[in-house]
Amino acid sequence: MAASLPVSPLALPLPALTTVSGVRLGAVAAGIRYTGRTDLVMAEFCEGTSIAGVFTKSRCPGAPIDWCRQNLPGGKIRALVVNAGNANVFTGKAGNETCRLTAFEAARLVGCKPEEVFLASTGVIGQILPTERITNALPDLSRTLKEDAWEQAARGIMTTDTFPKASVRRTTITGTPVVIQGIAKGSGMIAPDMATMLSFIATDAKIPAPVLQTILSACTVDSFNAITVDSDTSTSDAVLLFATGAANNVHIDDSTDPVLSDFISALKAVMLDLALMVVRDGEGATKQIEIIVRGATSNESARVIARAIADSPLVKTAIAGEDANWGRVVMAVGKSGEPADRDKLAVAIGGTTIASEGTVVEGYDETPVIAHMKGTEILIEVDIGLGKGESRLWTCDLTHGYIDINGSYRS
Amino acid sequence: MAASLPVSPLALPLPALTTVSGVRLGAVAAGIRYTGRTDLVMAEFCEGTSIAGVFTKSRCPGAPIDWCRQNLPGGKIRALVVNAGNANVFTGKAGNETCRLTAFEAARLVGCKPEEVFLASTGVIGQILPTERITNALPDLSRTLKEDAWEQAARGIMTTDTFPKASVRRTTITGTPVVIQGIAKGSGMIAPDMATMLSFIATDAKIPAPVLQTILSACTVDSFNAITVDSDTSTSDAVLLFATGAANNVHIDDSTDPVLSDFISALKAVMLDLALMVVRDGEGATKQIEIIVRGATSNESARVIARAIADSPLVKTAIAGEDANWGRVVMAVGKSGEPADRDKLAVAIGGTTIASEGTVVEGYDETPVIAHMKGTEILIEVDIGLGKGESRLWTCDLTHGYIDINGSYRS
Repeated sequence: MAASLPVSPLALPLPALTTVSGVRLGAVAAGIRYTGRTDLVMAEFCEGTSIAGVFTKSRCPGAPIDWCRQNLPGGKIRALVVNAGNANVFTGKAGNETCRLTAFEAARLVGCKPEEVFLASTGVIGQILPTERITNALPDLSRTLKEDAWEQAARGIMTTDTFPKASVRRTTITGTPVVIQGIAKGSGMIAPDMATMLSFIATDAKIPAPVLQTILSACTVDSFNAITVDSDTSTSDAVLLFATGAANNVHIDDSTDPVLSDFISALKAVMLDLALMVVRDGEGATKQIEIIVRGATSNESARVIARAIADSPLVKTAIAGEDANWGRVVMAVGKSGEPADRDKLAVAIGGTTIASEGTVVEGYDETPVIAHMKGTEILIEVDIGLGKGESRLWTCDLTHGYIDINGSYRS
Repeated sequence: MAASLPVSPLALPLPALTTVSGVRLGAVAAGIRYTGRTDLVMAEFCEGTSIAGVFTKSRCPGAPIDWCRQNLPGGKIRALVVNAGNANVFTGKAGNETCRLTAFEAARLVGCKPEEVFLASTGVIGQILPTERITNALPDLSRTLKEDAWEQAARGIMTTDTFPKASVRRTTITGTPVVIQGIAKGSGMIAPDMATMLSFIATDAKIPAPVLQTILSACTVDSFNAITVDSDTSTSDAVLLFATGAANNVHIDDSTDPVLSDFISALKAVMLDLALMVVRDGEGATKQIEIIVRGATSNESARVIARAIADSPLVKTAIAGEDANWGRVVMAVGKSGEPADRDKLAVAIGGTTIASEGTVVEGYDETPVIAHMKGTEILIEVDIGLGKGESRLWTCDLTHGYIDINGSYRS
């Protein structure tokens, strides 16, 4: 089970965390599934906090996803409740009722409307979530919330994660200092009954919900949507962004306002940090893999090709074996179904061009590539040679560790 | 390497093989890549033999695929040359030249046009195929061809296959007895640099090429196109069907002619036999998995959903661990992107309904399902509850064996 997994060899240390004015958090051991660890996290936000969210594209989402989607148009949040150990997915009417009861209890404690409470659950699918363990624990938890409990929150949402994940950036909006701080969990982007990807990011910037939503959606494309561990889309993926407004910066009503450019860069950096931490904690991962596709007929085409490479079990096992098996990269380009011409294709690994114009380059010396493959950060570059489309994705290798974790999770 | 792999626990014995009048075959050790085993197969067909073929959808196909596609419209075959150990893929102009030289030599030996020679190669990608090892071996090989060398041919085309694959059926066309016999290789539908799927099927029926092609394409849908091992599409997949005409049955000029119905049933049976043997020799496989999706909005939608389940690493690792983790099946339905409604979904494993109407069935007893999971043939049935679309696919589990084989193939 989660507690017994060895820490990922790609684990990163927790950065020095700060506080975000207007946000207080806490975590408690509610005994939902795990013993001897926290598994219930609550956050309270000051009045006026706006919210944006992006969610899984699964056609069978969990009940908390439905709850969040339903309340997101209101644009306001006062409380967040997250539990680990049970995803509250495929739990029928009981699952919806758990959401309703949890939100009502949190709203009572905070003094807000239930629609201003957002929820997330992560863990096993198809088991009824014991609602009373959450609602019984919330009153005490709500009394202990504090501004500097971000690490506790990061640890409380972990499932098969082997290290807590957080990132922080400071920036300004027309000279007013603002901070962006986020946490995430996930070990496998996309490993639904144990490693659903969740991320919660707060800023003290004052940004209205519609603008916040536009920014969040745009920044998701090249961060959380640019990673894959095992190609399996979770039923519960959610990224929520909160803006408390405590920094009291200038009024903003347009996401394209140039005063936001530094903020957007900083947010992108936080989101990419967190996304890469999820890859680095990918189940069984021993290598982080960056895939850059250029020269495709469009950016979307490049993205589909990059995804085909990143999701190929043959590419991922070859990298686990430190084998620069570029033929499998060619195979993955071919299977993507996107426009490609074998005789214009070029493949480079670790900066060394191995193949171009449909065959291996003359005098190819594998030595530097072999050395690159022994490292923990692998770079694969493919030039399709047809256009200007580009895309960049990150994934991890496929190892015995993945089989170990996923072949025996429930037992 | 191939020779050292243990035989699949799902291996089937070779059936009692027969001959197909008009076909003579042989195999020889040409030293293309392997030592101490046959790796070059040749077959000669009597004049008047018609041919049909289906090929990989890869955008980066191997040179032999291009060669076959180019000559298929002629509809005639006199010789087939297949080598194992080198796929002749991503080999640029040299790859095309290898095809041309091989076909010219085989044509000279048989006394036919080069366009009546068909070629297939399977093995590593991106290495130049030493043409002379083939062309030097062909003259002796062509002198030793005989009608009863089907087993030798089945063994000569193996790569990481752990057992030879063949199937035979006898049927009639308006009372005239005909036989259909085929061989296949593949261990991983779809594992391009070691286990490309190839199949060669011969019949003594007299069927013109256009009719043969229509029948082959139709029968492929529910056989070779209904299996997946690891979702990776090969650069070299090919299924060729030869009809020598030696049985001298009634003239046929329409694939919908009812006199063909027994023949089509028998051909389907041979193709499904061979396809399931490929699954049962899937790299690292310990379980054969059948997935039936019903109630989808269309057959095509059912197929996409079934494929999402079959290709999910989380479903496959759970089955390897004998864990009836139906939540992962729900996840896979959700990620397929096809129309689905969580609250109408039902999932059964081994004939036991586990979940329906969006949640686990009341009083679900896991006992019979646990017993089913310990077997080697696993059945997963999903009812989407929206329409009448159905599809059936087969796959295998994902185990440490897959990682072992693919993490160190080239070394």
